[in-house]
Amino acid sequence: MRRFNHKATAALMSVVLMASALIGCGMAAEKTAVSTEVTNEVYEANAANKAKTVSNGTPKYIFLFIGDGMSYPQIQSASYYLGAKSSTGGDVTGGEALSFMNFPTAGSAQTYDSTSFCPDSASTATSISTGHKTYSGVINMDTTKTVAYETVAEKLKSQLGYKIGILTTVNLNHATPAAFYAHQASRNNYYEIAQELVASGFDYFAGGGLLKPTGVNKDLPSIYDVAEEAGYTVVTTQAEIEAVTADTGKVIAIDEHLADSSAMAYEVDREDGQWQLADYVEKGIDVLDNDTGFFMMVEGGKIDWACHANDAAATINDTIAFDRAVQKAYAFYEEHPAETLILVTGDHETGGMTIGYAGTNYDTFLKNLENQTISFAKFDTDYVASYKENNTPFEQVLADIQENFGFVAPENAAQAKAEELVLTDYEVEKLKTAYKRTLKVGTSTQSEMTQEEYELYGTYEPLSVTITHIMNNKAGVSFTSYSHTGLPVPVFAIGNGSSLFEGYYDNTDIYNKLATLTSIK
Amino acid sequence: MRRFNHKATAALMSVVLMASALIGCGMAAEKTAVSTEVTNEVYEANAANKAKTVSNGTPKYIFLFIGDGMSYPQIQSASYYLGAKSSTGGDVTGGEALSFMNFPTAGSAQTYDSTSFCPDSASTATSISTGHKTYSGVINMDTTKTVAYETVAEKLKSQLGYKIGILTTVNLNHATPAAFYAHQASRNNYYEIAQELVASGFDYFAGGGLLKPTGVNKDLPSIYDVAEEAGYTVVTTQAEIEAVTADTGKVIAIDEHLADSSAMAYEVDREDGQWQLADYVEKGIDVLDNDTGFFMMVEGGKIDWACHANDAAATINDTIAFDRAVQKAYAFYEEHPAETLILVTGDHETGGMTIGYAGTNYDTFLKNLENQTISFAKFDTDYVASYKENNTPFEQVLADIQENFGFVAPENAAQAKAEELVLTDYEVEKLKTAYKRTLKVGTSTQSEMTQEEYELYGTYEPLSVTITHIMNNKAGVSFTSYSHTGLPVPVFAIGNGSSLFEGYYDNTDIYNKLATLTSIK
Repeated sequence: MRRFNHKATAALMSVVLMASALIGCGMAAEKTAVSTEVTNEVYEANAANKAKTVSNGTPKYIFLFIGDGMSYPQIQSASYYLGAKSSTGGDVTGGEALSFMNFPTAGSAQTYDSTSFCPDSASTATSISTGHKTYSGVINMDTTKTVAYETVAEKLKSQLGYKIGILTTVNLNHATPAAFYAHQASRNNYYEIAQELVASGFDYFAGGGLLKPTGVNKDLPSIYDVAEEAGYTVVTTQAEIEAVTADTGKVIAIDEHLADSSAMAYEVDREDGQWQLADYVEKGIDVLDNDTGFFMMVEGGKIDWACHANDAAATINDTIAFDRAVQKAYAFYEEHPAETLILVTGDHETGGMTIGYAGTNYDTFLKNLENQTISFAKFDTDYVASYKENNTPFEQVLADIQENFGFVAPENAAQAKAEELVLTDYEVEKLKTAYKRTLKVGTSTQSEMTQEEYELYGTYEPLSVTITHIMNNKAGVSFTSYSHTGLPVPVFAIGNGSSLFEGYYDNTDIYNKLATLTSIK
Repeated sequence: MRRFNHKATAALMSVVLMASALIGCGMAAEKTAVSTEVTNEVYEANAANKAKTVSNGTPKYIFLFIGDGMSYPQIQSASYYLGAKSSTGGDVTGGEALSFMNFPTAGSAQTYDSTSFCPDSASTATSISTGHKTYSGVINMDTTKTVAYETVAEKLKSQLGYKIGILTTVNLNHATPAAFYAHQASRNNYYEIAQELVASGFDYFAGGGLLKPTGVNKDLPSIYDVAEEAGYTVVTTQAEIEAVTADTGKVIAIDEHLADSSAMAYEVDREDGQWQLADYVEKGIDVLDNDTGFFMMVEGGKIDWACHANDAAATINDTIAFDRAVQKAYAFYEEHPAETLILVTGDHETGGMTIGYAGTNYDTFLKNLENQTISFAKFDTDYVASYKENNTPFEQVLADIQENFGFVAPENAAQAKAEELVLTDYEVEKLKTAYKRTLKVGTSTQSEMTQEEYELYGTYEPLSVTITHIMNNKAGVSFTSYSHTGLPVPVFAIGNGSSLFEGYYDNTDIYNKLATLTSIK
């Protein structure tokens, strides 16, 4: 029953520390204690301490973690998956909490934008970054696309002199990171966004490579050169980033092991020793730490990409990796609890992910996701590309599926690692049909497909998305969409000012509350 | 942009009132204000007032509202539906907040039980009511089914002398209400549960009729007679319940207009003038109000039933009706803010409902749900029963579907109330196939169906569930399951002790926090 870890209670050293930390401490105690151990004393102490916490003035160190496409289903399924993995059978005893699930504050934010109840990352990041609603696809401009909004990061830099870090597992000029430094009518203006990245003068950029670094027609000066001319140190190998220190000056760090679309690798595909988001956060703290203060925005961008493709295993693994990045900030918070604020939120939900599926009724078999050892994207490049070239027989395909996902054909049931991993005839037929389409058509746009085909495959490789759909369903997980949905997102908070983030509010209020807290105008 | 109402700011009359209400007030102000209007003063006042709020001692009046099957998707879709209904076109400006979305506290609770990550109402209500995990299907007993747990309602009655009210839109001996007075190894022990209802001596029961009131074999004394012998006044007409007063003594009020399975009617089917859950709450306050205190558990039970059947319109309408019931408690809170605690939560999510669907991509058309003027259940009894008897031609069926759901066949596109309500050929084929199955087979158990058939129809009437699936999808909503899912549920709170319900915790902690607050042992 010790589902929630006790990290939050460790390393508390002063009265102020006690004041803010008791909230977390009280929470952890409650979660593991039997009911009678939750005393009125703790409860009243919590209340009093919350009042103290929020009167500490402006937080000097602000971490804003955004799980792209991450809402309640992604978080809870990751937690339950960890619980299922470590379970030895018998009664269900719950999940293993991601670190931020133990934060004292867990509010909710609604995410609609001016276009839709199912918003996009450009508009939602604009809301979080500036407090304004706008249309889907727009970065920090109003709905007339003529007025630019200054961002929380720009204001913290210009008004308070904070150092600024922008980190993401996807491209550094993708919508979410862009919304902290750029102002563009379209998120697709990648070159212009990258120009604004350089112009921002922010101190630390780290993550995936820039999209269109030489423009749409590949005829413009490379942004990497432009950045170096502007005084940035651009590093592109792990050895180089490891060597970066606070004395290096302004840095743009591009991950050495880029994968699909120049983004960092999915966690499920990452090799041992290869840097992950947590490493870039740790380095970022070294680079940014200073006596005035810093603001660090950290995006787990591939949670969203995996959900678009309905790949539950990739989603869950990236959510767990995202939590490891949060834990680096938490370690810093433990050293500076009265001066640090950590926020962890999502920008919107992606995929309509659910823990539960018609075919598995009230059961889930989340542990089965462990058998998926490759993302849909890497399966596309490492396997499907060669299938298409060689017209590989379905039997060989099925053998590869067995190796990478653990499924076995009905006739090989004895080889299955778990009962549920045996394919039904219905599922084998689905795979065969999808494989035929992959060989004949490959990926298609929505307009080229029938309603039924689009529901089955989206714009993904028919074989790969069918494999992950079957994997999800056999684990007791499902998706309803290849797009974003209208679910609200949680807002977890700990540290100085965290209690301001309680309640159910609009995503623009995340900016508003930060502005209140830091007195930026 | 005035999406959130200002009710929370009205009728504040004393310092204590100000203290607790400023939280709600501050929230509402923040939600409608531009960022600069959120001042540090309000923020610091909130923090200080929260400390005051929670030091008021035991709340004398406790309302616990449970939306069965209601989690974030049900709440947010209801809010967005109201926004879409009142929108006059142009930019999306959000939803209309349900009253409890403005409560100052909005925590989250995970819901797994000892059987599954997708728990049932018996075990989850046991957790909320007693602070213990148990197996699905078990009411207030441990996993050996030998130890009975005393409930929060029983303790408040015996230890503090509170009057107790139990209200539900479904059967008074259904799992959720049962979990506040009964102790049974199986939720299906309806007669024994009803015997415990009478034995509880609780003051006010109101809602749907008892299941199996004369036992499984209909040969036992009617529970209604047993109740009257035990001193209960049993009323079964609206006129009788209207006449009930605080002087009537212990009351069991059964709704006059019972619908499917002896439950109250779905809101979408309710006739004008027919009592709804809000009326029973208002009457309950009259009956229970006393100087010592009361506890009232109010279940919106048909939110769950509608989600099981994947009927989004019925779900949303019942969620809105549930909010009207909460508003009655809120009106009482406004008169007794320092002494009242209102909690609004769900027991689990049902159906894997999502705001978003592959076929509609990033769009939703929630307003289209307005065209559905009948629940799946009433369509079954009022239409499908006669189709089966008369082998009604599909053309007539389609005409009835047009009348009750607004869909039109492709050739009648001109008659459509909205573009999206024109059926595609693919959808017409789906309806024809489902109708054939309805005429030939009707409803089936899961074991009688293929995997594909079960995914399409569950155990529902194939025609009706196909109609609501198409309705949902045309509105941009979808479901993944006919069962419960593992999504956490929100816990909204206002009033004395509300801040204790902040954070992300286990559903057993809802009991633990109530126990802390009231000092029950």
